Amino acid sequence: MQHQIKDVQFLPLYQQVRFQLLQKISDSVWLAGEMIPSEFALADEFTVSQGTVRKALNVLVAEGLLVRRQGVGTFVSDWPEEWGDARLVFHGAEFSSLKDRIEPELLSCSKGIATDRVAEGLGIKRNTPVINIRRAWRLSGQLVAFDEVTLDASRFDRVDARLIKQHAGKLYKLYLAEFGVRVSAATEWFMAAGSIEADWVRFTDNVPVLKVERCTTEMNATIFEWRRIWVDSRRCMYRSA
Amino acid sequence: MQHQIKDVQFLPLYQQVRFQLLQKISDSVWLAGEMIPSEFALADEFTVSQGTVRKALNVLVAEGLLVRRQGVGTFVSDWPEEWGDARLVFHGAEFSSLKDRIEPELLSCSKGIATDRVAEGLGIKRNTPVINIRRAWRLSGQLVAFDEVTLDASRFDRVDARLIKQHAGKLYKLYLAEFGVRVSAATEWFMAAGSIEADWVRFTDNVPVLKVERCTTEMNATIFEWRRIWVDSRRCMYRSA
Repeated sequence: MQHQIKDVQFLPLYQQVRFQLLQKISDSVWLAGEMIPSEFALADEFTVSQGTVRKALNVLVAEGLLVRRQGVGTFVSDWPEEWGDARLVFHGAEFSSLKDRIEPELLSCSKGIATDRVAEGLGIKRNTPVINIRRAWRLSGQLVAFDEVTLDASRFDRVDARLIKQHAGKLYKLYLAEFGVRVSAATEWFMAAGSIEADWVRFTDNVPVLKVERCTTEMNATIFEWRRIWVDSRRCMYRSA
Repeated sequence: MQHQIKDVQFLPLYQQVRFQLLQKISDSVWLAGEMIPSEFALADEFTVSQGTVRKALNVLVAEGLLVRRQGVGTFVSDWPEEWGDARLVFHGAEFSSLKDRIEPELLSCSKGIATDRVAEGLGIKRNTPVINIRRAWRLSGQLVAFDEVTLDASRFDRVDARLIKQHAGKLYKLYLAEFGVRVSAATEWFMAAGSIEADWVRFTDNVPVLKVERCTTEMNATIFEWRRIWVDSRRCMYRSA
């Protein structure tokens, strides 16, 4: 189920069309929940037959990226949001319609080795090579959280700081556009962090820290991403989806 | 939108049927996700016309308690679960298929006054009379959490320890059966508790405590319940729905 956009020209025609459709979704030409153009219009745009478009759409529907509504049309399905997008809120601001600006800052993207906990989360062997993406999060300018995203390096080998910047830090879009991996669901576990096991996470002393662990599955229910976030609870809260 | 089952005999016939249907849902005769009997079978059971059954079903569909699937039948819709139901998990047990037994213990159910925070959560005035339900939660016998449920006393006046026991501690079922209030959605906010503002919540000293605040809305999007839970993070985690 691993796809490399760069090899697109060697794929069957309907798969090439599929990747062009994927690109439109990952580039936000078509947004989640929006109706896409008709098979006829798409066949015209890509100069292929309607049958080829239908075949590509069938695959995307089977993969869950598109949804057909009978007698209406074909829609881009919704997906779980990344954190940050209105998940971190200041105390007392949870009922406010004003959204605070949340910004991730990439600290590092480097190769590492799966620890016990990460191996368990990702369902891989301990000491397997992984990629660790570390970020700091600012809410209206104030540092409020750190997170670490871990991926299996054998599968997501091309992920580096340059590629992340190219996708403006939107990892879910990156997985889809670069690897054909579509996020399907996420489960989160919440706890208060007694101590912070990651030495690069630096809050002021004695701050109560919320820790969230999150595993993300793709369409076939395989876990492919493991995240941990540490939130300064003196400053803000983490809201459920 | 407040209903009192006890006045059922003075309601129009279709409303009486509606309450009998509600009762079947709240008594778990029909479970969430299950298909209910046909209009014909229900008319026969309640000795009313099929038109009266249809009218009652229409109201329940409009309220979101039932869902019609064309050409298939009418189903009991799903609703957000209460916490406890597999939301509290021991560390390391999150991928286990074994479910730990979670049990709430009612500590008290008493009248009180809305504090600032509760008033904001429930959208009522400060010092409004409220009902506070306090519980302790055990996971496989170990005390892992405390919670407090707050309701507007003017609306949920009949809620007391006896009524809670009568519904086996299932509050969502109680709201539906006794007040016709159907839970529609819940939003949660997570944080690490620096200090615990409730003096009746007693953990061993220096335990890192996760605090969750939760507001629950009914079908018309009004918030009617405010909860707080405190979880001993040394013992367990809280899992997202």
